[in-house]
Amino acid sequence: MKRAGDPAAVGVDVQRSSEARLQQSWTANAGAWTEAVREGRIESRRLGTDRALLEAVMSRAPGRLLDVGCGEGWLARALAPHGFEVVGIDGSEELIASAQELGGGTFHVLGYEELTSRPDVVAGPFDSVVCNFSLLSESLTGLLRALADRLTPDGELIVQTVHPFAAAGDEPYRDGWREEAFEGFGDGFTASMPWFYRTMGSWVRELRAADLGLVDCLEPLHPQTTRPLSLVLIARLAHHD
Amino acid sequence: MKRAGDPAAVGVDVQRSSEARLQQSWTANAGAWTEAVREGRIESRRLGTDRALLEAVMSRAPGRLLDVGCGEGWLARALAPHGFEVVGIDGSEELIASAQELGGGTFHVLGYEELTSRPDVVAGPFDSVVCNFSLLSESLTGLLRALADRLTPDGELIVQTVHPFAAAGDEPYRDGWREEAFEGFGDGFTASMPWFYRTMGSWVRELRAADLGLVDCLEPLHPQTTRPLSLVLIARLAHHD
Repeated sequence: MKRAGDPAAVGVDVQRSSEARLQQSWTANAGAWTEAVREGRIESRRLGTDRALLEAVMSRAPGRLLDVGCGEGWLARALAPHGFEVVGIDGSEELIASAQELGGGTFHVLGYEELTSRPDVVAGPFDSVVCNFSLLSESLTGLLRALADRLTPDGELIVQTVHPFAAAGDEPYRDGWREEAFEGFGDGFTASMPWFYRTMGSWVRELRAADLGLVDCLEPLHPQTTRPLSLVLIARLAHHD
Repeated sequence: MKRAGDPAAVGVDVQRSSEARLQQSWTANAGAWTEAVREGRIESRRLGTDRALLEAVMSRAPGRLLDVGCGEGWLARALAPHGFEVVGIDGSEELIASAQELGGGTFHVLGYEELTSRPDVVAGPFDSVVCNFSLLSESLTGLLRALADRLTPDGELIVQTVHPFAAAGDEPYRDGWREEAFEGFGDGFTASMPWFYRTMGSWVRELRAADLGLVDCLEPLHPQTTRPLSLVLIARLAHHD
């Protein structure tokens, strides 16, 4: 029985409503997001996070790549000239339509829960699976397992995310829901976005729970502040590294 | 030929003199260190780093444990009642003499370079190898390989170190030599100690270079500031995890 004030029940409610608002925000902000990415309005991307991801991907031979939460598709367009065959998926119809307009890969409207529950959709194997600032949920184990299942035996999962150190701010260094207001990203962001902050240890444990082992961890730096701009986790199947 | 102002040559000189002063500091400060540990003068240890290490070790069944840079031997004394068979090594004769006085394990005066060059000394296999704030050098690969060679197939290497995020301070988030003055540790510290600061990514790469894979990463928090007190890296042989 659920009691008022039961911390566990409150936690479940927070998670449920945050996950729902997280998904909705990508529909509400799809147009603004496409503009922000295409016009280079996001400073951290210009300063190094786009380049860090491209270098991580391109350090290996070209192959099949799954772009999870591909948004308006910039990564496929950047990689296509280098021989990568990119499949992009995103839950937002409008973002996938924007991606398809400019091409560079194959794009599908697909929610993460479908990827998790149906091994037949977007079937592997992929040489690389990329999640570029697109793992924002509290519960990741099912999705990470579904991604691990789609990797070649020596394939790599590449996750770029906010750096746990740089993003801690004045809040406790603990996992928890935070709110992104998209300040400085330009106009048209009508919805703020809940996202789940994770510590370094939490990332390592999430990967392990999906039988993935961390093989490298890149930390591109802000050229002026010399603080990390992001964290790039590179993982392989634990028994095939 | 070594030219004046050659950055590579300067780097080698800095490394050589820092490593020498690092070793000397443990001889110079041995008495002060023994007092500081035994009288509980080091705040971070009281607040949680000792407990974090003990919990990491004791989460597994008792077995043979190698304590690398054991100092005055507190870990052996804490673990002995729980059935662990501890072998402690340290480069400082005075610290090993202090450890032997109070017992709890077997202690040897041994420099890391001997451990690295002679597979026959302190022969494995060990179920756990612990380095508690004792990996302070710039070059770790040889030592980590020597430790990996002494692990049982499912053995764990447990490294506790300063947290790269908390210890960055105002300096760039980059690997490099820093200086520890032992302020607040009590009297008698006559020598400051050079130590090599490492980023998170640097730790992951050092482990991988020794064929060790990170399986967990603990971050005990300061109870008031809720910032990490330390980083506890738990690694296993990459092909046996």
